[in-house]
Amino acid sequence: MPTASRCAHVHRLPMRSPDDVSALEAAIAEGGIDPAGIVAILGKTEGNGCVNDFTRAFAVRSLEALLEKHLPTEALRRIAMVMSGGTEGALSPHMIVFEAREARDDTPRAFVKSLALGRAQTPPLAGEHLGRMQQVEQVAAGVTAAIKDAGISDPADVHYVQVKCPLLTMERIEAVDARGLRTAVRDTLKSMGFSRGASALGVAVALGELTLSDLSDAMICSDYARYSERAATSGGVELLDHEIMVAGMSAAWTGPLAIDHAVMRDAIDIEPARAALARLGLAVPGQVPEAGRGRIAAVLAKAEAAQSGKVRGRRHTMLDDSDISSTRHARAFVAGALAGLFGFTDLFVSGGAEHQGPDGGGPIAIIVDRT
Amino acid sequence: MPTASRCAHVHRLPMRSPDDVSALEAAIAEGGIDPAGIVAILGKTEGNGCVNDFTRAFAVRSLEALLEKHLPTEALRRIAMVMSGGTEGALSPHMIVFEAREARDDTPRAFVKSLALGRAQTPPLAGEHLGRMQQVEQVAAGVTAAIKDAGISDPADVHYVQVKCPLLTMERIEAVDARGLRTAVRDTLKSMGFSRGASALGVAVALGELTLSDLSDAMICSDYARYSERAATSGGVELLDHEIMVAGMSAAWTGPLAIDHAVMRDAIDIEPARAALARLGLAVPGQVPEAGRGRIAAVLAKAEAAQSGKVRGRRHTMLDDSDISSTRHARAFVAGALAGLFGFTDLFVSGGAEHQGPDGGGPIAIIVDRT
Amino acid sequence: MPTASRCAHVHRLPMRSPDDVSALEAAIAEGGIDPAGIVAILGKTEGNGCVNDFTRAFAVRSLEALLEKHLPTEALRRIAMVMSGGTEGALSPHMIVFEAREARDDTPRAFVKSLALGRAQTPPLAGEHLGRMQQVEQVAAGVTAAIKDAGISDPADVHYVQVKCPLLTMERIEAVDARGLRTAVRDTLKSMGFSRGASALGVAVALGELTLSDLSDAMICSDYARYSERAATSGGVELLDHEIMVAGMSAAWTGPLAIDHAVMRDAIDIEPARAALARLGLAVPGQVPEAGRGRIAAVLAKAEAAQSGKVRGRRHTMLDDSDISSTRHARAFVAGALAGLFGFTDLFVSGGAEHQGPDGGGPIAIIVDRT
Amino acid sequence: MPTASRCAHVHRLPMRSPDDVSALEAAIAEGGIDPAGIVAILGKTEGNGCVNDFTRAFAVRSLEALLEKHLPTEALRRIAMVMSGGTEGALSPHMIVFEAREARDDTPRAFVKSLALGRAQTPPLAGEHLGRMQQVEQVAAGVTAAIKDAGISDPADVHYVQVKCPLLTMERIEAVDARGLRTAVRDTLKSMGFSRGASALGVAVALGELTLSDLSDAMICSDYARYSERAATSGGVELLDHEIMVAGMSAAWTGPLAIDHAVMRDAIDIEPARAALARLGLAVPGQVPEAGRGRIAAVLAKAEAAQSGKVRGRRHTMLDDSDISSTRHARAFVAGALAGLFGFTDLFVSGGAEHQGPDGGGPIAIIVDRT
Repeated sequence: MPTASRCAHVHRLPMRSPDDVSALEAAIAEGGIDPAGIVAILGKTEGNGCVNDFTRAFAVRSLEALLEKHLPTEALRRIAMVMSGGTEGALSPHMIVFEAREARDDTPRAFVKSLALGRAQTPPLAGEHLGRMQQVEQVAAGVTAAIKDAGISDPADVHYVQVKCPLLTMERIEAVDARGLRTAVRDTLKSMGFSRGASALGVAVALGELTLSDLSDAMICSDYARYSERAATSGGVELLDHEIMVAGMSAAWTGPLAIDHAVMRDAIDIEPARAALARLGLAVPGQVPEAGRGRIAAVLAKAEAAQSGKVRGRRHTMLDDSDISSTRHARAFVAGALAGLFGFTDLFVSGGAEHQGPDGGGPIAIIVDRT
Repeated sequence: MPTASRCAHVHRLPMRSPDDVSALEAAIAEGGIDPAGIVAILGKTEGNGCVNDFTRAFAVRSLEALLEKHLPTEALRRIAMVMSGGTEGALSPHMIVFEAREARDDTPRAFVKSLALGRAQTPPLAGEHLGRMQQVEQVAAGVTAAIKDAGISDPADVHYVQVKCPLLTMERIEAVDARGLRTAVRDTLKSMGFSRGASALGVAVALGELTLSDLSDAMICSDYARYSERAATSGGVELLDHEIMVAGMSAAWTGPLAIDHAVMRDAIDIEPARAALARLGLAVPGQVPEAGRGRIAAVLAKAEAAQSGKVRGRRHTMLDDSDISSTRHARAFVAGALAGLFGFTDLFVSGGAEHQGPDGGGPIAIIVDRT
Repeated sequence: MPTASRCAHVHRLPMRSPDDVSALEAAIAEGGIDPAGIVAILGKTEGNGCVNDFTRAFAVRSLEALLEKHLPTEALRRIAMVMSGGTEGALSPHMIVFEAREARDDTPRAFVKSLALGRAQTPPLAGEHLGRMQQVEQVAAGVTAAIKDAGISDPADVHYVQVKCPLLTMERIEAVDARGLRTAVRDTLKSMGFSRGASALGVAVALGELTLSDLSDAMICSDYARYSERAATSGGVELLDHEIMVAGMSAAWTGPLAIDHAVMRDAIDIEPARAALARLGLAVPGQVPEAGRGRIAAVLAKAEAAQSGKVRGRRHTMLDDSDISSTRHARAFVAGALAGLFGFTDLFVSGGAEHQGPDGGGPIAIIVDRT
Repeated sequence: MPTASRCAHVHRLPMRSPDDVSALEAAIAEGGIDPAGIVAILGKTEGNGCVNDFTRAFAVRSLEALLEKHLPTEALRRIAMVMSGGTEGALSPHMIVFEAREARDDTPRAFVKSLALGRAQTPPLAGEHLGRMQQVEQVAAGVTAAIKDAGISDPADVHYVQVKCPLLTMERIEAVDARGLRTAVRDTLKSMGFSRGASALGVAVALGELTLSDLSDAMICSDYARYSERAATSGGVELLDHEIMVAGMSAAWTGPLAIDHAVMRDAIDIEPARAALARLGLAVPGQVPEAGRGRIAAVLAKAEAAQSGKVRGRRHTMLDDSDISSTRHARAFVAGALAGLFGFTDLFVSGGAEHQGPDGGGPIAIIVDRT
């Protein structure tokens, strides 16, 4: 058995506001978290999760302000910070800190494989490439680099790939116009969907779920029959490149944490998640009981409104609602379905699952402490 | 054993828009529903469920236009039509038609007690009485009349009391001002909460859950420790009185339908609903399987945001959101939790559960076909 | 001078709710309005003016219920009812009733030309034709018929053409998919823009402002440099065809009313409207004084957010707002600019001015009593 | 004539996003602004302007990050930063930097009095004091201090008092509950109104418009007949104290800038603003022409929905809208009315004018360059 040199730790911390980093600050002060080991920080902030959601950038700015006291700029820049806006329903604002520590070679191995983490960043994406094959290819290359960084040999051991991707604003669209080019879409809110969709297809390509020959500009955000079962992509107005984190299982890592994933076929398809829990050693008939909840380190899921306009044959109104974006409806609803299973509300449910799982459904990854 | 003279039927019908009554029209044409037997119609329409939601009145107007072709005005006026606005998340617009038919005396009794229905209407409520003890007393009297109408002898056999209550608009507030009086609240959206709260306390008094001496103007919508476990109240701009329907079990009724209720302690407390299903003969470990779903005639639940600002210790943001009303957040989220259990989305989840179940939770009633 | 056989009357009536027709009912009862003479009814209702705005259909249903007591079905169907949703800001819900009466041949002519009205309806529009040249041509034919109906010989005498056009809902899109065809757009809210834009171009063609050879599917809702200066189009989920009303000046009509129009170059360009007022004999330095307001029968304007993202070089945020549709922002803002000039708030300002005036601006028509 | 020792400068700078301080950064780099002279910064940011608007705090954080490179913490803390959320309609996000410079004693005086600036901060406000007389008195003391700081001898020379005040969040309400006390209001959005109202009454007391004996807890946000004609108050979740800036005319200051104010009686009452412009030497018949616009340094106004539910007798729907807060409607609409007069859209129009001008109206201050 190869020597495991690294050990992953996952910390789920509450946020009182988008710029509240006090829980992380306390954990660092108490030695519970070593800033130097932070690989990525995922957060759910309380904005609308759409174009004019500045809570994501505000949270990132606040995290940077805290961490730059502990890390050199270069190290800080390597931490993937993925803030997902939108805590609709009773979703609770929180951050999930992924930390990697050196493991002593003489640490007795309790498990063959453990949670492994990897990351990568892509170059800035040109506005005219957003939602097109160039974005797919750029993301695929980034994911491959992140898998390598995680020390995961078999793509089948990858259970979760988070990609934070850019979007178009009026100013960015005008910049493209000024260069005499056309963006794939002019509606700023829709641009988020195209960016998420192309990024997810990039993940599928890197994981071998799809091949580039399956794809084209035309099918992006139109042929939803093609998708990744392990991608989670979310857009943000505050970045121009892609921030990628991969989570999977590897013998190069040790520790009690394990990750698995499932695919929800529709917005209320929670049984596959229950099955994944069982595979992780946490079999439950109804809602996860209090004791079991403590063993769940993180739940990472996607939510979206079915383009069919129906859930199991019943009409939904999310896509006809001009007051509330369908992404907000879907987050609130799917979060409710999952909270009913898991028994807590600080779930990382992000909206917009274009090409992430089947239409109206989405992937879900769960990290559990096996001890 | 007394002779059962009546038999209740419950029909769950889809709506393509607030004014779509085609499914009911078809059922009447095919003889599936006898207009003369309709006791009440509950509906979920796709407005915002708040003050300026005109989909409820539009739906009622459309139902009246259909039914007046089949019924004399007097009979039509006796049908309680309770449209609840708000199909957030994947909630599916639908109507539930409660029908009572004569049962032949020689019908062999399969069950000791069966679903029983009763109804009542109160006089118009003066604007200055809304959200105050006068409304509590007026509703209590109406509920008592409805229980009698249902032929239910023991209040303990009452499992669901639906009250549709009025609200304040600027014009109604000005009318009260003009009379030199003050309304309990001037915020039109808040007035819906006070009306729902006072109505629920009225139900509690009628059911013996609380006594008038427990209550006062001051505690309405402030002391949420006092509540009914079987009330479901919802406001509408289109009425000035109260429309009440009671559903329970009675030996005076026959047929396969049975009703039971449970109380959710918080927005994700679905296990009591699972237990109620089991009591009704439908025990399920996870989500109700397809076969079982067919036996569920109706699910009637309330949803609201916990005033504590937390769900099981985790902060929610529903009460701080100035873009989306907390009632809309809560409906979407609780609907998701319940759809995860029941496996379908045409659930009658209505927002605003002031004094209906504990803060942040709410009552839920389930009607099942026992055959 | 030809004999004037007709005389137009314009009545501006308040609405207390989308279904409030009491003011019209009273006017008919008092003989102020003869139902048989009603050519069209324009109304501003208080919904969101977007896809899920049911206040428009509710208002139309209520008007029909009132008028069918006075008119045979055939005559009722010929009345164009154009409800425009959205009374953002302080816009006041109201209806404008356009009435045509027989003029006695011996009536002394005070004016050479007077306000003339005409109307037409098109066949139902196939979903796949919406936002494409087929819709442009269908509307152009309808407008030509309406001009003829108004007895207006010179298109230059047409100052206002109102077109109520259909939109796409998920169900309509699916119906087109089922026929193996593709709609011009899949986003339901965006479909309203394409329908308004194609209809406006149809008006431009009928008025000779543009020729069919100037137009193509590709330029609809993309090349906003081409537009009509007299079109006002608004979408509604409740219709599948187009309802058209033309208003202009004609010697075949008599009476004190006159109409003129102007074009706002941007959202705050009110001086052209002031100039139109002066041409109509109502010159004002600042805001129209109380006396003058009484002479203004109707103000009909369009509002939209500039696609450039700027107004006179200053950035606006309407197109980046995912909480409030840009059409709602624009109606509220332009209504404020116009109310500052006219001095009252029951202005018919409708949102979405695609190809109606220059990008970010829009046409405005004013009807004044010259006596 | 006394020696004028100070000279006020006002800079209106665009913002591309809530955290965009590039225009200020450039002005400092070019020497156009001396950080040491900055008295206050007012900004319009693009959030919802209500409770969960984090764009204000984000903007303040960004300004602090820039200015702390140029100023000692102590000096930085003395700068009043008043971000007002909400750029509805075509309002343009911008900041107004108020700067005070030393004036050389030998500077020839062109004017007897010039724009004078003063500032003050209050101690933190206890949650239970918000919206009550304690807040009124605390603000009055702060304003008096700011007038003295401005070197204004006669309160009649004060034309604008900006107060940034705190609001209640669920956490703050719970903190008060925990101390066994009650807040004046439990609705977080409503708490903003009570804080703005009490602060405005504090201004009125300091300016001698009202006396403490006129006021009581009960009349705050209920008796709108009492108000200040020069107060502008706006709430923010990011502060617990009050930040106050006073602007008026004083012989102790020199320079071309002058300020005057007017009171709008309702949302479309723009003529008083036109009269103020004339008093400042900028008489215009219609919209301010391009040349004149360049001389207007800043426009500072308040907007709110009339509690009467009407504007000049016509019903508005702002207070019955549960989708969009009335403060957002009012800002968009009043901004339109003012932009129609001034001809540009970077106007500082802030929502919520409780006790600031008459119900439905509000004060407006204008700063003009007299040269």
